[in-house]
Amino acid sequence: MAEPDLSSYANLDLDRTKRRGYPEAVYCAGKTPEQVKGIAQALRDHTGVTLFTRADQEHADAVRAVLPDAFHDPIAKLVAWPPDPPAPTGERVVVVAAGTSDLPVAREAALTAEYLGRATDLVVDVGVAGLHRVLAHVELLRRARAVVVVAGMDGALPGVVAGLIAAPVVAVPTSVGYGAAFEGLAALLTMLNACAPGVAVVNIDNGYGAGHLAAQIAAAPGQP
Amino acid sequence: MAEPDLSSYANLDLDRTKRRGYPEAVYCAGKTPEQVKGIAQALRDHTGVTLFTRADQEHADAVRAVLPDAFHDPIAKLVAWPPDPPAPTGERVVVVAAGTSDLPVAREAALTAEYLGRATDLVVDVGVAGLHRVLAHVELLRRARAVVVVAGMDGALPGVVAGLIAAPVVAVPTSVGYGAAFEGLAALLTMLNACAPGVAVVNIDNGYGAGHLAAQIAAAPGQP
Amino acid sequence: MAEPDLSSYANLDLDRTKRRGYPEAVYCAGKTPEQVKGIAQALRDHTGVTLFTRADQEHADAVRAVLPDAFHDPIAKLVAWPPDPPAPTGERVVVVAAGTSDLPVAREAALTAEYLGRATDLVVDVGVAGLHRVLAHVELLRRARAVVVVAGMDGALPGVVAGLIAAPVVAVPTSVGYGAAFEGLAALLTMLNACAPGVAVVNIDNGYGAGHLAAQIAAAPGQP
Amino acid sequence: MAEPDLSSYANLDLDRTKRRGYPEAVYCAGKTPEQVKGIAQALRDHTGVTLFTRADQEHADAVRAVLPDAFHDPIAKLVAWPPDPPAPTGERVVVVAAGTSDLPVAREAALTAEYLGRATDLVVDVGVAGLHRVLAHVELLRRARAVVVVAGMDGALPGVVAGLIAAPVVAVPTSVGYGAAFEGLAALLTMLNACAPGVAVVNIDNGYGAGHLAAQIAAAPGQP
Amino acid sequence: MAEPDLSSYANLDLDRTKRRGYPEAVYCAGKTPEQVKGIAQALRDHTGVTLFTRADQEHADAVRAVLPDAFHDPIAKLVAWPPDPPAPTGERVVVVAAGTSDLPVAREAALTAEYLGRATDLVVDVGVAGLHRVLAHVELLRRARAVVVVAGMDGALPGVVAGLIAAPVVAVPTSVGYGAAFEGLAALLTMLNACAPGVAVVNIDNGYGAGHLAAQIAAAPGQP
Amino acid sequence: MAEPDLSSYANLDLDRTKRRGYPEAVYCAGKTPEQVKGIAQALRDHTGVTLFTRADQEHADAVRAVLPDAFHDPIAKLVAWPPDPPAPTGERVVVVAAGTSDLPVAREAALTAEYLGRATDLVVDVGVAGLHRVLAHVELLRRARAVVVVAGMDGALPGVVAGLIAAPVVAVPTSVGYGAAFEGLAALLTMLNACAPGVAVVNIDNGYGAGHLAAQIAAAPGQP
Amino acid sequence: MAEPDLSSYANLDLDRTKRRGYPEAVYCAGKTPEQVKGIAQALRDHTGVTLFTRADQEHADAVRAVLPDAFHDPIAKLVAWPPDPPAPTGERVVVVAAGTSDLPVAREAALTAEYLGRATDLVVDVGVAGLHRVLAHVELLRRARAVVVVAGMDGALPGVVAGLIAAPVVAVPTSVGYGAAFEGLAALLTMLNACAPGVAVVNIDNGYGAGHLAAQIAAAPGQP
Amino acid sequence: MAEPDLSSYANLDLDRTKRRGYPEAVYCAGKTPEQVKGIAQALRDHTGVTLFTRADQEHADAVRAVLPDAFHDPIAKLVAWPPDPPAPTGERVVVVAAGTSDLPVAREAALTAEYLGRATDLVVDVGVAGLHRVLAHVELLRRARAVVVVAGMDGALPGVVAGLIAAPVVAVPTSVGYGAAFEGLAALLTMLNACAPGVAVVNIDNGYGAGHLAAQIAAAPGQP
Repeated sequence: MAEPDLSSYANLDLDRTKRRGYPEAVYCAGKTPEQVKGIAQALRDHTGVTLFTRADQEHADAVRAVLPDAFHDPIAKLVAWPPDPPAPTGERVVVVAAGTSDLPVAREAALTAEYLGRATDLVVDVGVAGLHRVLAHVELLRRARAVVVVAGMDGALPGVVAGLIAAPVVAVPTSVGYGAAFEGLAALLTMLNACAPGVAVVNIDNGYGAGHLAAQIAAAPGQP
Repeated sequence: MAEPDLSSYANLDLDRTKRRGYPEAVYCAGKTPEQVKGIAQALRDHTGVTLFTRADQEHADAVRAVLPDAFHDPIAKLVAWPPDPPAPTGERVVVVAAGTSDLPVAREAALTAEYLGRATDLVVDVGVAGLHRVLAHVELLRRARAVVVVAGMDGALPGVVAGLIAAPVVAVPTSVGYGAAFEGLAALLTMLNACAPGVAVVNIDNGYGAGHLAAQIAAAPGQP
Repeated sequence: MAEPDLSSYANLDLDRTKRRGYPEAVYCAGKTPEQVKGIAQALRDHTGVTLFTRADQEHADAVRAVLPDAFHDPIAKLVAWPPDPPAPTGERVVVVAAGTSDLPVAREAALTAEYLGRATDLVVDVGVAGLHRVLAHVELLRRARAVVVVAGMDGALPGVVAGLIAAPVVAVPTSVGYGAAFEGLAALLTMLNACAPGVAVVNIDNGYGAGHLAAQIAAAPGQP
Repeated sequence: MAEPDLSSYANLDLDRTKRRGYPEAVYCAGKTPEQVKGIAQALRDHTGVTLFTRADQEHADAVRAVLPDAFHDPIAKLVAWPPDPPAPTGERVVVVAAGTSDLPVAREAALTAEYLGRATDLVVDVGVAGLHRVLAHVELLRRARAVVVVAGMDGALPGVVAGLIAAPVVAVPTSVGYGAAFEGLAALLTMLNACAPGVAVVNIDNGYGAGHLAAQIAAAPGQP
Repeated sequence: MAEPDLSSYANLDLDRTKRRGYPEAVYCAGKTPEQVKGIAQALRDHTGVTLFTRADQEHADAVRAVLPDAFHDPIAKLVAWPPDPPAPTGERVVVVAAGTSDLPVAREAALTAEYLGRATDLVVDVGVAGLHRVLAHVELLRRARAVVVVAGMDGALPGVVAGLIAAPVVAVPTSVGYGAAFEGLAALLTMLNACAPGVAVVNIDNGYGAGHLAAQIAAAPGQP
Repeated sequence: MAEPDLSSYANLDLDRTKRRGYPEAVYCAGKTPEQVKGIAQALRDHTGVTLFTRADQEHADAVRAVLPDAFHDPIAKLVAWPPDPPAPTGERVVVVAAGTSDLPVAREAALTAEYLGRATDLVVDVGVAGLHRVLAHVELLRRARAVVVVAGMDGALPGVVAGLIAAPVVAVPTSVGYGAAFEGLAALLTMLNACAPGVAVVNIDNGYGAGHLAAQIAAAPGQP
Repeated sequence: MAEPDLSSYANLDLDRTKRRGYPEAVYCAGKTPEQVKGIAQALRDHTGVTLFTRADQEHADAVRAVLPDAFHDPIAKLVAWPPDPPAPTGERVVVVAAGTSDLPVAREAALTAEYLGRATDLVVDVGVAGLHRVLAHVELLRRARAVVVVAGMDGALPGVVAGLIAAPVVAVPTSVGYGAAFEGLAALLTMLNACAPGVAVVNIDNGYGAGHLAAQIAAAPGQP
Repeated sequence: MAEPDLSSYANLDLDRTKRRGYPEAVYCAGKTPEQVKGIAQALRDHTGVTLFTRADQEHADAVRAVLPDAFHDPIAKLVAWPPDPPAPTGERVVVVAAGTSDLPVAREAALTAEYLGRATDLVVDVGVAGLHRVLAHVELLRRARAVVVVAGMDGALPGVVAGLIAAPVVAVPTSVGYGAAFEGLAALLTMLNACAPGVAVVNIDNGYGAGHLAAQIAAAPGQP
C-alpha cells in the first residue's frame, strides 16, 4: 500500500528555525507511528536539529526506521536527530529535580536545552524537606544563566531556589504525587504564587518547554 | 420589646468543657449582634474561658455590653472572657507568620492557644523567599511542642519548617494573595502535599482551629 | 551491566533521624524497582527504621532482594526494615476506619505509627450511618493521645469523633466513593470544615503521613 | 408614565396549581421592585397561595403596595399571600438547622412547607460537634414524614439524621462557613456522598426548594 | 487457611432494619471477593432483604458461593437475597432513563425500589431532545408517588418531568457523556439548579440511593 | 489639561468592517469614561455602526458628550451610534429569555442583532418548568433563521428549543441563579452537553456575542 | 436466544427528520454492540441518512452485520448509512484542524457536514504557533458559509480565524494536550472567551455536533 | 502614641540585593498604611531602589509622608523610590498589552523593568482579533531580549507573539473579562498550553513579577 500522504495529516513549519532561531519539535502523543514516520521522512533532508517529544517506544522505532542513528532517551521519551547535540554556545543551564520521580521530566528539560545548544547540568533529589540538600548546590546554581526546577507534590522548590540566586528560574510542575496533588495542579499553583519573583512557570510535565525556554534565556546576546 | 428567646436561635454546648476538656467557642460570623449578646448573657454565669471568634466591632460591642471587661483583639477579631488567659500548663506553642498580611490569622492562633492554657510565642514575616529568616529561628522552633505556621500565596513555609524540627506543624493556609492564589486554595493544596511529613492542615484562615489544635498537642500528658 | 549509580536518581537524607527524630521514608510510586533496590542497598548499613511506602509487589520484591527479611504488608503497600517495630514509647494511638474499603489506608497509618514507636490499635467499619458503632468505642478513643480517623465518601466521621474526645484527631480522607466524591475531594473538604475543632487534616489516602503525625503527637515529652 | 407592560418581562404560569398541585413562586432576586409589583398585581385576583422568595425589603414593599396585608419574614426573605397559611393536611415536616447562622435558610424551608399546607416544626443549633444535641431530638424526628436538615460548613448533619430515622431527609447545604467551605460547595458534596441512604439534596441555600419537596413528600396520599 | 476474621474488616449494622425500617446494603466496590463472601456468610442467617451493590462478576460469584440462589443483575451490578422481592406495599414508583446508556443506573434504581417493597415501572430513552417522547408518558408519571429520573449529559430531564407532575422527582445524574459532561458533574449541577421545585438530587450514578429514597417516599403512611 | 492621547491606551480596528463585514464594538468594562470618550471621538467621523457594550451610566454619558444623539439602553447597558439601526437584511432572528432575570442579556442580544441589520423578535419568561409556555411559541421559533436562547440556573431551555426546530440555536448561559449555579457555570455546562445537536454556545452573559453570531447566521447569502 | 427487545433499551426518534430536517444520530458510546445492532435493524427500513457516532470497531461490525455496505471511517469513529453522502445543497463548509492530533475530531465534523448535505473541505495542521500557515488559507476560509475550527491545547485558533472572516466559526475544543490542558478544558475556556465575536462553541471533542451546526448554518435559505 | 514597632509585623530582607542582585519589593495589599509607613521609614536609609506594589492611594500617601519625592503611578498602583529609575543596562524589554483594560498590569510590568534597570517600551491594544495589529509591531518585538505580553479574556496573544520571535515571552494573564474568563483562569490556562514554546507564565495580574522576570532575562551577561 502506498505511504499515507503527509499533507493529509501534517503541515511542517520548516521555516521556524529561520523565523525563531529554534527548530520545530514533533509532539508524538496522539500521532500514529505511521504519521511520525512520515514526518521523519520529510525532515530527513532538512538541515538542523529535530526533536521528537513524548515518543513512546513505537514512535521511536518509527523514527529510527527512517533515521537509524537518531538518539533516543526512553526515560525522557525524547528522540533527537542528528544524534549529537551541537557544540554549546551561550551560557550554562542547570536543571534541578526535587525528587527521583521527577527524573523523566527533568531529563527531557536537560536534553532539550542541550540539543538547542546550551551546556547543561542535572542535579537530582534535592527537595525542600531537607533544605541542606538545596543549600549544598548554591554555588552551582549561581553559575547558571537559567535554572530549571522540576518538582511535583507541593512544588515548593522553585520559589526557594529563586530566593537564592540572581538568574531566572524556569519552574516545571510535575504530576508526581497523589490525592490533593491533583495531577500536578497543586504544584502548578504553588509555582504561580511563589513569593520570590523571578519564577517562570510552564505547563505540568512540560520538560521540553522548560528546556526550550532556558535555552532561549541562556542564549548568547544577539543570537537565538 | 422583650429580648429574643435564646432557644429560637442557639443551643449552647455548655457540657463541652467536661466532655472534651476545651470550652465552646462562639463563631460570630453570620450571627446578629443581638444573637451574640444573648449568647454572652447565657454564658455569663458559666465558669471557664469563652472565645468569640470572627467578631466584628459590633459583635465585640454586643459582648461587652454584657461582659464589660472582656478582652478584645480587633486584628484577630477575637473576644475572650474572662479577660486574662489562664496560667499556662503543658508545653510551649510557637506561631510563625510567613508575611505581614498573615498577621490577623496568626494572632488569632496565638491568642487561642494562650487562652486555652499554653505559653505561646509569635514570630512574623519569615517567608521562604529569604530562607535565612527561617533558619534564624530554628532554635526557638525546636523548643516548641507544636508549631503553627501561617502562610498565604504559595504556602511553602510549613513544609520547610516541618523538615527542620521534630514537633508537629499545624499549617494554616491564608487567603492572602491574588490571582491563582484562589483565595487560599493554592496555599491549602501546597500544605496538603508537603513533602515533609508531620504537617497537620486546617481550613483556610482558620487561626482559631490551629491554635486549638496546637493547644491540644502541647497539653500536658493525661490532661486536656 | 553495572548497577545504576544511586547519585543519578536519588540523594538520601540519612541525616533526617538526627535532625527530626524520625527516619526518612522511601516513596516508591514513580520509582522503578531498580531505583528502589539501589536505595535499599544504600540504606542497608544505615541504622534505624526505614519505611518503603506505596510499594507494589515488584517494589517489595526489589527491597527483599537486598533486605530479605524485611516486613511487607501488601494491603497497606508498606515495607519496613528492620522487620520488627521498636518497643513502644510515648502514648497510645488509635486508628479508626469508617468503612471496609478504607482499610488499606488505615493499615498504612497504623503500621507507620507502630514502626515509629507507638502502641497502636485499629478499629474498622464504624461509619456515621450507624452512630451506635462509633459510640461503642468512646472509651477506647478517650484513652488515646492521638486518634487517626480514616474515611471516604462524606468524610463525616473525624468531626464526630473530635466532638467526643479531648485528644487531637488526625483526619485522612480517602478516595473511596464515586461520582461527587471526586476521588476524595468531598471527604477532604468535609474534614477541613469540621465543626468540631481539633481536626488535623492530611492529604487524601495519606495513611503514612497520618501515622507519622499521630506518632509525633503521642511522643513522650522531650522525645521525638 | 404608564405602568410597564407585564408581558415585556414576565409570563406567569397561573396554570401550575392545576397541573402540579402547588402554586408558582416568584423568585425576586434579579427582578426590579417594579417588576415584582407588576407580578403581584397580576396575581391579586388569582386564587391560592403565592410565595415571593429572596425578597429584599424593597421587593417586600413593592408587594405590599399591592397586597397590603401580605405576610413578610425578613429573616427568611419570604413574602406570602394570603397572609395565613392554609390549614395543614398530610403529615408532619420537621426542619432542623445545624447552627444559628443557618437560621435564614431553615426558616425559609419551614415557612414554605407551612404555606404549602403541612404542619411544621423547627429545631435550631444541633450540629454534629455535640452529638447529644441531635440525639435529644430523635423522638421528634421519628414522628415526621419528611425531615429537612439545613447545614453549612462540613454539612455532616443530614447523613447522621438519616441514619437514625425511617423518613427521607431533605438536605440543604448552606453557604455558611469560610475558606474551604467554598460558599457551600463542601457541604453540598458531603450531603451528596452521605453514607446513609435516604438523603435528598437540593441547591445551596435553597430553603424554598427544600420546604416544597418536604411538603410534597408529606402530602396525604392521592393529594398533591 | 482459616477464613479471614470478619471483625478485622467489617462491622455489620444488623440493627438497621429495626432502627430505620430498611436493611443494610453491602457496597462491594473496594472490597475483595473474600470480604464480600465473609459478609454474605454473616448475613445468611439474618432475616430480611440484603442488597449487594456495585458487585462485579467476582463479587457476585463470592456471594453465590454462600447464597447460591441469590438474584444477580449484571447490568445493574446488583445482587439480592433472598432472590424474590417482597410483595409490594405503599404506592407506585416509576423510573425513567433519558437514554439507553443510562440503563445500568436506572435498573439499579428500579430493582432497589422493588426489593425494598414498592411496585415499580421502568421507562427508557425519553430524553428532552424529543419532547414528545416525555409527553407520551405523562399519564404513567402522574400515577406514581415518586418518579426517579436518570439522565447524563445535560441532565435536563428531571426538571422537565418535575414541571409536569405533583409527585417528587428523585434525580440521578449519570456519568454518561464526554468532555464538558465532566463525568456527570454537568448533569449534577443542572439537576441542583432545576427551575421546577420538587427535585431531590442524589450522587452521580447512585441508582441504589435513588431507588431507596423513592421507596421511602412511596412508603405507606406510618410504615417505613 | 490636554486630552489623553488615544494611542497610549487604544488602537482601533477601523478596518474591521471591511475585513469582516461587521463593525468593531467597544467593550467599556475596565475602561475609564475618559478612555471611552476618546474612542468615541475617534469613531465620530468613521462611517458605519458602532456599539459600546457593558456601558455603565457614566460610560454612556461619556459617549453622549461626543455623540449626543447616540442610542442608550440602560437595561442592556448598550450604546449605539448612529442611533437608528440599519434597515434589516437577511432573515429573521428570534431571542428567547427563560426568565425575567435574564432580560438584560436577552435585550443586549436582540439589540445587537438589530443594529447589525437583522429583523429581531424578543420573547420573555418561557422556562422549561412550564413546557406549555415554550410550545406556545413554536411557530414563531420555526420562522427564524437563528434563535438566541438566554437562560440561567439549569440552562435547559436551549436544548429543548433545538429539539423543536431546524435552525441553529445560539445558547447564552447567564449568571442568574445562586449556589450551585456557580455564576452561570451550571447553565454553561448544560448547554455544552445539550442532547439535541445544533446548539452554539457563547460565554456566560455574552448577549453581544450571541446577537452578533445570530446576525452572521441569518445574513443574506453572499453578504456579511 | 431471542433478539433483545428494542423497547427495553431504546425509543427511536424517527420523526426527527420531519420535525427538525436533520436525521437522528446514534451515539454508540455506552451502548453494547447488541443494542447498536438492534437499532440498526430498526432503522434499516427507515429512509434517510443515519449516522452512528463514537463507534468502536465492534459497534461498526454490529451495524455492518445488518447494513453490510454501511460506510465506516475508523479515524472519525463514524458509521454512515446509506454509504454515499447526499448530493450537496446550500453553501460550503470548511473544517480546519490546528494539529495532526486533532484529526479524528476534524474528520468527524467534516464527514457529518458532508452526510448532512454540504460540500466540505478539510485543512490540517495550521496552528497559531506559525501564523503564516493560517494566513495561507484565508481565501479558502472566506469562501465558506461556516468554518469549523478544531483545536486542543491553547485552543487559540478559532478566535484568530474569526477575526479574519465574515462567516461564523464553529469552535471545537479537543482533549489533545496534557497537564493544564485539563482534557480540553483550557481550549474550551479559550474559545468561550475569544476576543473576536462570531465564535460558536460546542462540547470538547464534539466533531459530530460541530459538523451538524455548520451544516445548519450553511443550509440553503428556507431549507433545513 | 508611639509608632508601632516594626518587628511586630515585618522582617525586611535588606540583604536581598546583595544575594539576588534585585531589591526587595513591598507588597502593600493586606498591609495597613501605618505598616507601610513603618517599612518606608526602615528603608529610607537603605541604598538602592525600592518598589511598593499594589499600593492604594492611602498606601502611596503613607510612603510619601516619609519619602516625599517618591514616584507614584496610580494606574499601575506602584510607588518607587528613589523617584528616578537607574540608567538602563543590559538589553531591551518590550511590554505588549492585548487590550486597553489590560493597561494597569502592563504599566506595572513596564515600570518594574525600568526601575530594575532595563530600557523598556510599551505597546497597547494589539489583540489577536485583528492580527494585523500584532504583525505591525514585529520589528519592535524582534529587537527585544524579553517580551512581556499581557492579556485577559482568551489570553491567546502570548502564544502568537512567541511564534514570531526568538526571545522568550513572559506571559501575564489578567482578570479582564467576565463569565467563563473566571477572573483570569481562562487566560492563564491558555498561556500554559501555548503551542509555541518559549512562553514563561506568571500569576494572574502579576505585572510586577513579569517585569522582574523580564529584567532578569534581559540583564547584561554576568550581571544581575
